Amino acid sequence: MIRIALDALGGDNAPEVVLNGAVSAVNAYEGKFHIVLCGPKEEIEEGLKKLGYNGDAISVVDAPDRIAMDEHPIDALRKKPNSGLVTCVGLQKKGLVQASVSAGNSGAMMASCLMLLGRSNENFARPPIGCTIPTAKNRALLVDAGANVDEKASVLVDFAIAGCVFAECYLGCEKPRVALLNMGEEEKKGPAVIQEAYQLLKNTSLNFIGNVEGRDLIAGKADVIVCSGYTGNVVLKMLEGFYEMHQELFGTIDTPEGKRFAQMWDYRFTGGALLLGLNGTGIIAHGRSDAKAIEQAVYAAYQYAESKVAEKIGLKLAEYKQA
Amino acid sequence: MIRIALDALGGDNAPEVVLNGAVSAVNAYEGKFHIVLCGPKEEIEEGLKKLGYNGDAISVVDAPDRIAMDEHPIDALRKKPNSGLVTCVGLQKKGLVQASVSAGNSGAMMASCLMLLGRSNENFARPPIGCTIPTAKNRALLVDAGANVDEKASVLVDFAIAGCVFAECYLGCEKPRVALLNMGEEEKKGPAVIQEAYQLLKNTSLNFIGNVEGRDLIAGKADVIVCSGYTGNVVLKMLEGFYEMHQELFGTIDTPEGKRFAQMWDYRFTGGALLLGLNGTGIIAHGRSDAKAIEQAVYAAYQYAESKVAEKIGLKLAEYKQA
Repeated sequence: MIRIALDALGGDNAPEVVLNGAVSAVNAYEGKFHIVLCGPKEEIEEGLKKLGYNGDAISVVDAPDRIAMDEHPIDALRKKPNSGLVTCVGLQKKGLVQASVSAGNSGAMMASCLMLLGRSNENFARPPIGCTIPTAKNRALLVDAGANVDEKASVLVDFAIAGCVFAECYLGCEKPRVALLNMGEEEKKGPAVIQEAYQLLKNTSLNFIGNVEGRDLIAGKADVIVCSGYTGNVVLKMLEGFYEMHQELFGTIDTPEGKRFAQMWDYRFTGGALLLGLNGTGIIAHGRSDAKAIEQAVYAAYQYAESKVAEKIGLKLAEYKQA
Repeated sequence: MIRIALDALGGDNAPEVVLNGAVSAVNAYEGKFHIVLCGPKEEIEEGLKKLGYNGDAISVVDAPDRIAMDEHPIDALRKKPNSGLVTCVGLQKKGLVQASVSAGNSGAMMASCLMLLGRSNENFARPPIGCTIPTAKNRALLVDAGANVDEKASVLVDFAIAGCVFAECYLGCEKPRVALLNMGEEEKKGPAVIQEAYQLLKNTSLNFIGNVEGRDLIAGKADVIVCSGYTGNVVLKMLEGFYEMHQELFGTIDTPEGKRFAQMWDYRFTGGALLLGLNGTGIIAHGRSDAKAIEQAVYAAYQYAESKVAEKIGLKLAEYKQA
């Protein structure tokens, strides 16, 4: 059975919503996975008792240190090995779990995964965050959603490769349509680094469809949208902002379209973001996660681990890097 | 009376929608401005006759050359001085009109305005496109919406200055809240150029509120949002795409919120984008403009010219550049 480590103290509303989400997850997906909650043992056990949970699909590993949301990532990693966040990644390094999930300090989670799990390919310099995003049609994959800044063109190509493998394994796309996010469709448009990446991508075996603009992204014209971590983060937060505004103005509209929109655009159903190109499965859930979001992040972690997304990305990257 | 030159052949649906929009504009805002339609004279006069227009608020200047939407901007400017686009800017240079509007090739419009009208301040190297955008609250100003790429930090500061003057004159903001679009709120977040611009902006007298993320932009936390032309264009197109998707899924929702949303988010009411930092008023309307969009772009041109936005930006830039 897949075992998933979950940072009990991660997120704005931890540990309450994390415990709640963990219990929902094991109830909703009974028999599929076991959750190892990492955090202050007594507090967690008391919390689980309050929720009336006494099954054996959840266990607890004591990790009393606390990492603040704005703590420096490397400091947090070095000084707080006994935090829930670092522990849940450490357990995966030791082979005791197959995936690690945290809604805590995302920089610290990235640093922990990078340092403890390592890159799946030494030539894959800068692992990006892959995040599934809503569109007018199906879900697409945005890469990088915010792990990196000031990337070179070759790094954007790595993002594209990792993103395509992810889309194949997880979104079930065959030959995913991969595109660069740009300010026009023409080859010679946009920043120098994007123009350079365009030329490099033309020469890969990926199904590169060229540039897409912001409208095309929303319209669902690409399955994998490649951009810098900076731009990706702006895009991701705008999508969240749209949804929140829509909900505030109109609530969930009682039509089939309205329900589908609410389901697809609610960030809680995203299942968190996956760090691509690592020896393992590290999920960064939203800091504002509620119990539903935690449940979905755990379930996504299970799916990634079960379908061996990380291993497949590693193999594919090796192929591309050799070719 | 303010005189506005309008490129009759600009846009995907020209000249029909342009003539239609021109007639709507002079009818809706009677007595406020005169429109000079620039394009093939016979064709335009026939079109106006078909629309039943025989007033004196519209005149025609013959400009038979045609610029394609994908034609190289500089080529278009050099080789087609007798196009509607170049003519409508040329008339402004000669002092015969106070504003120029085109929904045609936006690169050619930018090049024409830059070459023919010139910069209002020689130190203001790279005039940006300022575009008002919808938010969950009021309209805000996005700058640069796509005129430039690969800007230096000092250029982003110029964008901020021009944007603030625009927001004061046109959106009626006192001490507009100006922010950098970034992937986090912290000073040390994001690409190197954004971090550098942050430090420069702290030392201006602008009401700089720091970084905003994509969600904050939608939530209306800033009046002037400063970013690279690349990112700004992605943002602008996403806002359009979101509105289009919303309309397709739900139509205009029959509540006060629904009507307000439809009014504010419909790109046709944007009034086109203004080139900031020039000796004159050049408006780039959307290539997909319909008659309503043309009408609104003409009206915006009138407002810009009437309230002397371009002159005020020039003066303010001179102040800042001297200080």
